[in-house]
Amino acid sequence: MQSNLDSNASCGTQIMRWADELAQHTDTPGVMTRTYLTPAHHGAAAQLAEWMCAAGMNVRRDAVGNVIGRYEGLTPNAPALLTGSHFDSVRNGGIFDGNLGILLPIACIQQWHAEGKRFPFAIEVIGFAEEEGVRFNATLLGSRAAAGTFDMAVLDNRDEGGHTMREVMAASGLHAVGLAKAAYDPATVLAFVEVHIEQGPVLLNEGLPLGVVTAISGASRFMVEVEGLAGHAGTVPMEMRRDAAMAAAEIGLYIERRCYGTPGLVGTVGQFNVPNGATNVVSGKAVFSIDIRAGDDAVRQRAVADVLAEIDRVAQRRNVAIAARKMHEASSVPCAPWLQAQLATALERCGLPLRHLPSGAGHDAMAMAAIADVAMLFVRCGNGGISHHPDEIMTAEDAALAAQVFGNFVEHFGSSFPRV
Amino acid sequence: MQSNLDSNASCGTQIMRWADELAQHTDTPGVMTRTYLTPAHHGAAAQLAEWMCAAGMNVRRDAVGNVIGRYEGLTPNAPALLTGSHFDSVRNGGIFDGNLGILLPIACIQQWHAEGKRFPFAIEVIGFAEEEGVRFNATLLGSRAAAGTFDMAVLDNRDEGGHTMREVMAASGLHAVGLAKAAYDPATVLAFVEVHIEQGPVLLNEGLPLGVVTAISGASRFMVEVEGLAGHAGTVPMEMRRDAAMAAAEIGLYIERRCYGTPGLVGTVGQFNVPNGATNVVSGKAVFSIDIRAGDDAVRQRAVADVLAEIDRVAQRRNVAIAARKMHEASSVPCAPWLQAQLATALERCGLPLRHLPSGAGHDAMAMAAIADVAMLFVRCGNGGISHHPDEIMTAEDAALAAQVFGNFVEHFGSSFPRV
Repeated sequence: MQSNLDSNASCGTQIMRWADELAQHTDTPGVMTRTYLTPAHHGAAAQLAEWMCAAGMNVRRDAVGNVIGRYEGLTPNAPALLTGSHFDSVRNGGIFDGNLGILLPIACIQQWHAEGKRFPFAIEVIGFAEEEGVRFNATLLGSRAAAGTFDMAVLDNRDEGGHTMREVMAASGLHAVGLAKAAYDPATVLAFVEVHIEQGPVLLNEGLPLGVVTAISGASRFMVEVEGLAGHAGTVPMEMRRDAAMAAAEIGLYIERRCYGTPGLVGTVGQFNVPNGATNVVSGKAVFSIDIRAGDDAVRQRAVADVLAEIDRVAQRRNVAIAARKMHEASSVPCAPWLQAQLATALERCGLPLRHLPSGAGHDAMAMAAIADVAMLFVRCGNGGISHHPDEIMTAEDAALAAQVFGNFVEHFGSSFPRV
Repeated sequence: MQSNLDSNASCGTQIMRWADELAQHTDTPGVMTRTYLTPAHHGAAAQLAEWMCAAGMNVRRDAVGNVIGRYEGLTPNAPALLTGSHFDSVRNGGIFDGNLGILLPIACIQQWHAEGKRFPFAIEVIGFAEEEGVRFNATLLGSRAAAGTFDMAVLDNRDEGGHTMREVMAASGLHAVGLAKAAYDPATVLAFVEVHIEQGPVLLNEGLPLGVVTAISGASRFMVEVEGLAGHAGTVPMEMRRDAAMAAAEIGLYIERRCYGTPGLVGTVGQFNVPNGATNVVSGKAVFSIDIRAGDDAVRQRAVADVLAEIDRVAQRRNVAIAARKMHEASSVPCAPWLQAQLATALERCGLPLRHLPSGAGHDAMAMAAIADVAMLFVRCGNGGISHHPDEIMTAEDAALAAQVFGNFVEHFGSSFPRV
């Protein structure tokens, strides 16, 4: 493909149109909610398969429900460059999160197919069936199946209707027994490259359309319960209080202060609740969440240790009991330097500035790292960088630039293969 | 009544037994929940009427459902010393809050009646039907009706079942049209004296059984809504955040700091919630309550002004919108010095130390102050001073001492009448 402005502009428009069309497949009309194996989810899968097919790919559906389109290389059974992202969504989410990373390579392949262009390797575009974890409280189902790291225990997780994942899969013609076969043989995989909307404001604030991800941040998550002593808001003097909410507030502000100013480190108290709180009652209990992430695991671990130490200090000083239960810990997943370098070169060839940034959010690439070197290309997110929200937007121009860079990366990927 | 240890001890035991028996009348078996005009509430009213009657009082029920027992004086139609408190409760509350102030004077009058003792004034014991405001989100219904300050607009308030107060009253045979007649003629009232459990830890911590209330604190209450910007917990750098929960936390800690160390001033954030908060989302919205009280109105107003100024500073610094809606403002209600002095003298005569303290909680005496000078006698609350909670306790010994002091006060009240 010769990069030319015209074809790229139409490519961007195509991606935006597809994103709009795909958004019609939603569990709840009027908002973007598409959870694993609902009728809307099946509708989206069928639509993706149709577009992949029309773009010249052979399409298959694996045992977890991933929709996989293969664009053959110059020779049959060539190892494949994998790309893709997820087509499920959070409740009331955005239409680009995930979907962009499927639609964009389909649009590129559509052009290559029209031009009769093939590469020394195959390209497989994977529409991962599940990443967000909404319906069954288990994330990355699609990419874990593809990577051979699917945890069979989650098949017994139940949705809000009380149905197990196993039952719901069976009702959709997907059988758990086939899950093992969904895993790629690493020997057939060259790399996994995921295009994704940034879901944050960094590129937007710097006026940059694209960024190359350095690593997917590791994360530590805790649920914290503070047990103080309930009391009457009018009758318990300040110095006799054991106020659970204020202990929680103090810890929250410490986390904020501790993470501020360290590049790549973020700390969030996203849940904060005083159960059955009343205006005239000093809170006896408060519950809050902690989410700490960093691209550098050591940076994250130091922050977590400091926060836990502060929790102990606050508990002692305020005479409250604080229990911090670890819910999740994941190391950071570095993006392969050789792939980052090739994405950087593609940006340069397209005349775009290079910005490296970590991904604070988790992505399918995390799971795919189990079987392949991974890389990610971030696309600028509009509206202050908001995502997982109906206000999530991006522009057709940025979609076109991302397609241009991704296309350029793929076209030159052949020349640098095998990996350095 | 000659104060004697024996009769006082039995008086304390009687009060405790009655409190236990009355607690059987609850909306929810096993916990103390008695809200306005439920079957349990009617059961409690009937029980109180029975005990009043047996103690030698004439009993009537007024249009709001107050149960009023009158112990005639030496002459018919003598002006009355009023006493009493409420027999409704908060949800899952304690069994002494309110009830003690009804049961204690019944126990005293039972003795006087047995001894054939009467005073130059009548005594009316009022079991106020409603004070807590649980069912219809309007407080002090009983004492406001008795004081002639009942707000007819609240008749249209609805309970959780969607029924208006007017409908619920009518179904209980209580008719709003009679509410005006529930009001006392101030000319027939000598004073209102309320006995109440302290609902705080001050007396407990100082090892004192009883205290004389100086004033019922004034209160300012706000509901505050913080509007920040929701964002992905992993992708929005700390310095770009507009975190609603952390803005709320900062204000909460300011309130705590501001009120600390000023005697009689308390400030509480009892409600604190991030609606639909999620571990991995920077909060876009937070809601919390502010409750600021002081015995001295100027002290409270200065604190409120400082808190509102801090709210503005936090809003500016964090680039969030904060709306503080005033829900309630009440000036402090001073207890009449002449009544305080007589309670103090009664304590002294009973050989008990004198402790003055403000009441941070609201009480029926606040409403009764509209038609009479008021006073309050506080009784030590056990268990760290906890109230509005199943752990609320007090001892039979303290009940006996309170009955002794209240009895002594009443017996000598005749001699100091008319009021000084």
